[in-house]
Amino acid sequence: MIRVEPLTAAAFAPFGQVIEAGIGKSFDINDGFTTRHHALARAETDADVILSIFEGRTRPLTVGMLECHPKGSQAFVPLNGRDWLAVVAQTPEADACRAFLCKGHQGLQYATGVWHHPLLVLEQAQGFLVVDRDGPGENLQEVFFDQPLEIML
Amino acid sequence: MIRVEPLTAAAFAPFGQVIEAGIGKSFDINDGFTTRHHALARAETDADVILSIFEGRTRPLTVGMLECHPKGSQAFVPLNGRDWLAVVAQTPEADACRAFLCKGHQGLQYATGVWHHPLLVLEQAQGFLVVDRDGPGENLQEVFFDQPLEIML
Repeated sequence: MIRVEPLTAAAFAPFGQVIEAGIGKSFDINDGFTTRHHALARAETDADVILSIFEGRTRPLTVGMLECHPKGSQAFVPLNGRDWLAVVAQTPEADACRAFLCKGHQGLQYATGVWHHPLLVLEQAQGFLVVDRDGPGENLQEVFFDQPLEIML
Repeated sequence: MIRVEPLTAAAFAPFGQVIEAGIGKSFDINDGFTTRHHALARAETDADVILSIFEGRTRPLTVGMLECHPKGSQAFVPLNGRDWLAVVAQTPEADACRAFLCKGHQGLQYATGVWHHPLLVLEQAQGFLVVDRDGPGENLQEVFFDQPLEIML
């Protein structure tokens, strides 16, 4: 069983960056009509950086596997303001898993090679902007657990 | 005066890409729980690709200037599902300006060097995920018009 923690930049630091207005360097641009919350994450890749939309649908809140992308970072930013879950681990083992409750205004970027569970939405389907890598070579590793872990909200 | 056109991938093609679910290559991943709308845009830059949040506030719907970023693309994706406006031009002249009504589920990427007006939100403030460039050298050019153009919604 994994207990859910709130997503904060400090707690998530071993795994990547939190993408959230107000937690980094912010300044006004465009004659004061826009505030830029600058460089909340920096894409890491040896190839192209691409922008995609992921539509995540509800699924059982269990963790039976982890994946990672050894050739680049992967960022998720929710497009409908709904809370979602991120599960990460420093090593691909059930005991190492940590679950973060991401509020609807919080995105995040998994650093290169960080083990994580595929997208977990909560009450209903949600779209995400995803910024990740496109290029040659295998960029997916997966590890499957003998017993799925339950997530305790 | 500029009349507003609907944002479509075909109409916007001279200026960059539309970032919208369903208009490109889509396929299911994550055991069928996620649909990936793949590579709707590809970042163009000679330096780092960064993710920022822009909070745009309402302003008069006039176009008194254009800007461009000669060293990289810049993508905007709305985070609250509200309609917004994009003004672009193939040359930095008032007569060349075109305005697109972007629906709340539509983002876009300005290709490298494309002239555009700074962020224009409509009825209320809105946050956007912005994917653009961070690196050395001047990446902003601006041209100011003698007479501001009005946008006709």
